[in-house]
Amino acid sequence: MSEGLHLKSARELARLFASRAVSALEIVEAHLKQIERVNPVVNAIVTLVPDAARDEARALDARLARGEEPGPLAGLPIGIKDLVATRGIRTTSGTISRKDNVPEHDDILVEHLREAGAIVIGKTNTPEFGAGSQTFNELFGATRNPYAPDYTCGGSSGGAATALAARMVPIADGSDHGGSLRNPAAFCNVVGLRPSPGLVSHGPVPNAYYPLTVHGPMARSVDDLALMLSAMVGFDDRDPLSIVADPEPFRAPLIAEFRGTRVAWVDIPGMRFDRRVRAVVDAHRSTFEDIGCVVEQATLDMSEANEVFQTLRAYYYASTLGSLVREPGSRIKETLVRNTEQGLRLNAEDIGRADLARTRLYERVRRFMQTYAYFVLPTTQVPPFPVDQEYVTEIEGAKMTTYIDWMSSCHYITVPGNPAISVPAGFTEAGLPVGLQIVGRHRQDLSVLRLARAFEQRTRFAERVPECAL
Amino acid sequence: MSEGLHLKSARELARLFASRAVSALEIVEAHLKQIERVNPVVNAIVTLVPDAARDEARALDARLARGEEPGPLAGLPIGIKDLVATRGIRTTSGTISRKDNVPEHDDILVEHLREAGAIVIGKTNTPEFGAGSQTFNELFGATRNPYAPDYTCGGSSGGAATALAARMVPIADGSDHGGSLRNPAAFCNVVGLRPSPGLVSHGPVPNAYYPLTVHGPMARSVDDLALMLSAMVGFDDRDPLSIVADPEPFRAPLIAEFRGTRVAWVDIPGMRFDRRVRAVVDAHRSTFEDIGCVVEQATLDMSEANEVFQTLRAYYYASTLGSLVREPGSRIKETLVRNTEQGLRLNAEDIGRADLARTRLYERVRRFMQTYAYFVLPTTQVPPFPVDQEYVTEIEGAKMTTYIDWMSSCHYITVPGNPAISVPAGFTEAGLPVGLQIVGRHRQDLSVLRLARAFEQRTRFAERVPECAL
Repeated sequence: MSEGLHLKSARELARLFASRAVSALEIVEAHLKQIERVNPVVNAIVTLVPDAARDEARALDARLARGEEPGPLAGLPIGIKDLVATRGIRTTSGTISRKDNVPEHDDILVEHLREAGAIVIGKTNTPEFGAGSQTFNELFGATRNPYAPDYTCGGSSGGAATALAARMVPIADGSDHGGSLRNPAAFCNVVGLRPSPGLVSHGPVPNAYYPLTVHGPMARSVDDLALMLSAMVGFDDRDPLSIVADPEPFRAPLIAEFRGTRVAWVDIPGMRFDRRVRAVVDAHRSTFEDIGCVVEQATLDMSEANEVFQTLRAYYYASTLGSLVREPGSRIKETLVRNTEQGLRLNAEDIGRADLARTRLYERVRRFMQTYAYFVLPTTQVPPFPVDQEYVTEIEGAKMTTYIDWMSSCHYITVPGNPAISVPAGFTEAGLPVGLQIVGRHRQDLSVLRLARAFEQRTRFAERVPECAL
Repeated sequence: MSEGLHLKSARELARLFASRAVSALEIVEAHLKQIERVNPVVNAIVTLVPDAARDEARALDARLARGEEPGPLAGLPIGIKDLVATRGIRTTSGTISRKDNVPEHDDILVEHLREAGAIVIGKTNTPEFGAGSQTFNELFGATRNPYAPDYTCGGSSGGAATALAARMVPIADGSDHGGSLRNPAAFCNVVGLRPSPGLVSHGPVPNAYYPLTVHGPMARSVDDLALMLSAMVGFDDRDPLSIVADPEPFRAPLIAEFRGTRVAWVDIPGMRFDRRVRAVVDAHRSTFEDIGCVVEQATLDMSEANEVFQTLRAYYYASTLGSLVREPGSRIKETLVRNTEQGLRLNAEDIGRADLARTRLYERVRRFMQTYAYFVLPTTQVPPFPVDQEYVTEIEGAKMTTYIDWMSSCHYITVPGNPAISVPAGFTEAGLPVGLQIVGRHRQDLSVLRLARAFEQRTRFAERVPECAL
């Protein structure tokens, strides 16, 4: 029975555990075996805690045997992003100065996942402090794309996406500032949701009021992602931005009717896409039409999104890394030092201008969404690029100004705060994964999950197991 | 039947209207008559729209006659704060440069109040741009305390509080940045609630992401305030900070059992109180004990709250008033010019430090609230002061540094974002009203309304009609 458990979905594994068809220990062992086999190729899991995971699995098995109700994620091994604190498990944020940091407490979100029965099996790789959409750092090196190990897995939740695609874990968390839940999902042929702010409580963090970073679920299917989300939502007063949300809708089957639903296939002026990505995504207009949607080409003006994002992001790094960067001998990567210094040069008027521009942009997107229920665009502007390249400097002949400009298809969406999901959309001719991003109407609208599932049901790209994982 | 309608509660008026015992027009006429008689003494309503109010009343009467379901506020005249946009009705923000500003659209919150059946009867006075807790401006002069016309009504929702106490309106809205819903409620013997952020949608405003300003209800009783709140809550995607909330609990009777509930009677180190205020409030420890609460003296460390509030407030004015202040010939009041200039001198690190300190303060208050369900302190540090005094410069011999230092009992509470309500607590020996502030456990906890109502049921100070209104 335990043969091939690592290939099963999270929902299926949870069912098998709850019905006592397999034990949590068997599930954990199957995944540990896969990690042992595949992780050396992709370097997704940077800290592994097999014994702790086995202990937790045994405890879960014992509780089930005693007749306790299993939680929604009971028996599911999970990889936690190395930015997120785990009690007793090294948490480095991908930076040298924290290489021996072992937190005494779990992050709130880890606590919620454990309460739901998830078993922490290890930590997933991230770029230093989660900055940039290429997962490498001085401590652990780069994580490789499971579909093409010479290419990047994206980031910053790159270890998570790779671990999922390589069948090393059935669920994984991530965080998203400028696209870190979406970009690696797209590059690794898995699903990543950037929820709206406050939905997933997390922390404690030094600047809990920073409004652009959110945490969320990743999985190999929308149904699995929704199951995981159901264990992550809910008010927690330890996170000052937390809001009340009902987990039930995410546990039930995500079925909906989309006949006549208007979907915008957007052009965002100034945003460049690699033609290989555009070709894969644009072929799916008809997929959405087959679902029943009315798909229309539309132009969405997101001017100022870039300035707002770059300003607030620089402010954030100045507020959290300012003193670290100034320390003599600090070994933070150069791009991040530059961002922090850029933040240290900002004044209140610069930040004020960003907040005013953000207010205007929010309103512009809101008005656009009075016509359309969703808008669709490629998750990323380029396909996965070589793993030894730090970032993308040019798209279709246009030079990029900063190291995150090639990520604007994600970070523009961050600014107004709409929920956005990346779902597998297929592969380039060279076999590199491409993701498609569906953006919902407003903060409280999580129906993107339902549309993404309908899309997935017709396409099923995520079912293609990468060669390294076979 | 229409005799004395202006003395009735909002709930009673709504019942009388819905049962067709009185018409909306009769209710409006009764309040217009009171305004005509009393407003010249107190100067609370600075723009009156009697004809528009009568038209709306007639329309409501007609709709009821046709059998339409009346809204929860149907037939209730309301005064809207002059900071808040009203379609076709002059909205000045108390500043010379907007003296002829007539908005084309209602603010979102006005729209919601009108949809619930409230009848806008006029605009209530506010200090210039709502800054400071003394309601005066160059356009309309000062609003006077209804209980002692030589004294201030407080502010910034001073026109609203005065209009309520003087029985000119049964409900009124206000906004609260550093205490503007609570301070004037205390000074005028009415009830004011500072809801947690996002609960009451409002706008559009230029900086919709500024997290410290909220809008909320004011009334002469907690039940009336809750009824009004029920029409103000609810998700509205036009406000980017809006959250989903159920209005039903605020419509039902606000009953609860407080036996054994732990209430902290707080000392906040460094916060000075006038002994007259302290005496009135401290006499109510036994009132809370009579309700069933366990009241304990406790020290709450709110250090850094002042720096955080003053920094973020200065940032806010720099972001919204920076260009106006720089205009040659701008006639903005000097205190506000100073705050704006202070904001223009801030850099990203200053703002970052404020956000980090706010995060720490939030956590400190949260931990304190693990022991106590509520904490109580005087709403204001001083009783109402003479109307010709711009602000308080000294409390019990201690000099204040800025023009808002005497308001720290309110603005400290603003910083962590907990809901706070001011209820009438009695009068000084000289007959000046004093308010008591109850602060709830966390953002999602609005049970402060229930405790405030239990307190009010035993004290009934708000029933004392000021002489000018008799």
